[in-house]
Amino acid sequence: MAEEVILLDSLISMFGMRVRIALAEKGINYEYREEDLRNKSPLLLKMNPVHKKIPVLVHNGKPVCESLIILQYIDEVWPDKSPLLPSDPYQRAQARFWADFVDKKLYDIGRKLWTTKGEEREAAKKEFLETLRLLEAALGDKPYFGGDRFGFVDVALVPFASWFYVYETFGNFSIEAECPKLIAWVKRCKQKESVSKSLVDEKKIYELVCDLRKKFGIE
Amino acid sequence: MAEEVILLDSLISMFGMRVRIALAEKGINYEYREEDLRNKSPLLLKMNPVHKKIPVLVHNGKPVCESLIILQYIDEVWPDKSPLLPSDPYQRAQARFWADFVDKKLYDIGRKLWTTKGEEREAAKKEFLETLRLLEAALGDKPYFGGDRFGFVDVALVPFASWFYVYETFGNFSIEAECPKLIAWVKRCKQKESVSKSLVDEKKIYELVCDLRKKFGIE
Repeated sequence: MAEEVILLDSLISMFGMRVRIALAEKGINYEYREEDLRNKSPLLLKMNPVHKKIPVLVHNGKPVCESLIILQYIDEVWPDKSPLLPSDPYQRAQARFWADFVDKKLYDIGRKLWTTKGEEREAAKKEFLETLRLLEAALGDKPYFGGDRFGFVDVALVPFASWFYVYETFGNFSIEAECPKLIAWVKRCKQKESVSKSLVDEKKIYELVCDLRKKFGIE
Repeated sequence: MAEEVILLDSLISMFGMRVRIALAEKGINYEYREEDLRNKSPLLLKMNPVHKKIPVLVHNGKPVCESLIILQYIDEVWPDKSPLLPSDPYQRAQARFWADFVDKKLYDIGRKLWTTKGEEREAAKKEFLETLRLLEAALGDKPYFGGDRFGFVDVALVPFASWFYVYETFGNFSIEAECPKLIAWVKRCKQKESVSKSLVDEKKIYELVCDLRKKFGIE
């Protein structure tokens, strides 16, 4: 059967980037459809009526939503190339734990760095750097989070690197100074074409964020 | 190898109940350790240093945290009896989606029903009932969320039934009147010993919540 794979996505979304990396790792051809999030397509609303969010992977007409769930789906449907999750149940649980940790912490705290001011931003800065330090400790001296192979946690976390310049600029800190091993890991991941082609230029995201801040009257 | 399985838990936690149901479904013997959440044990802090939360499953000395991750771990380590997730990747993604939806919505909104007042509580009530209606629609006319077999979403959701009396009393609504199929499903699940023995009496939780409200000065 000819596979039909459509990705409803938004270029600057770290959650969308995860799916793009996973599809590239697996060598899956797909149709990319950019969504205008202020004017969502009827297809997006139909395919994800509960959350109405990107990314949505539409595989042979059936939708899969929520980026970490999409990653696991991709890994299970196309298991032959570049496994994302390890085979050992304990290692799988560890990988799920850290990816879930990224989801629970990094996006919301990172967002506060560019949407809040004063004390609130300072509190976000402290929590953001603590979160990165925990992630750096989980990485340890391994090349990738799961060990020697690029895998699930790497795919879940590395898209946030596209937003590091935004976080650093508004948070007034240097991630490389605070977490050098994490930055070395980002550089290692970016050597993979699946990553470098899926991530978005940091300065481009910074410009978009500056526009958003003006629009929301945050400045 | 003799298995050592310890569950760090709190009796009234819906997240802990999930793990108790899953272990019962699989027929796993384990040592239950009740945690005093105002005075957490050194073992809990050591086994879950990141979130410092129950439940934690300690299997042969190694911790697994976060209830949905624990359920998947249990399902992968003891696959022979009572599979929780289906084998088909798309059905697995659907099950993960609804369990994740329960996690993202139900706990926080439900909590607002007994910790807030006035307009905030009214807004929570509206959102809570909308959430239950979405879940009821996902259940449809099936006996269980995954179909004919009790599975992952059932285990993830049914512990909240122990809190329904709290939600109904403070929200001033009847879940049975709003979502009759969901209540019929709760009754069906409770016919299973794994469920009935893991859930906690609704009135007992109500009394505890009343004590907490007094303590927090919410009344």
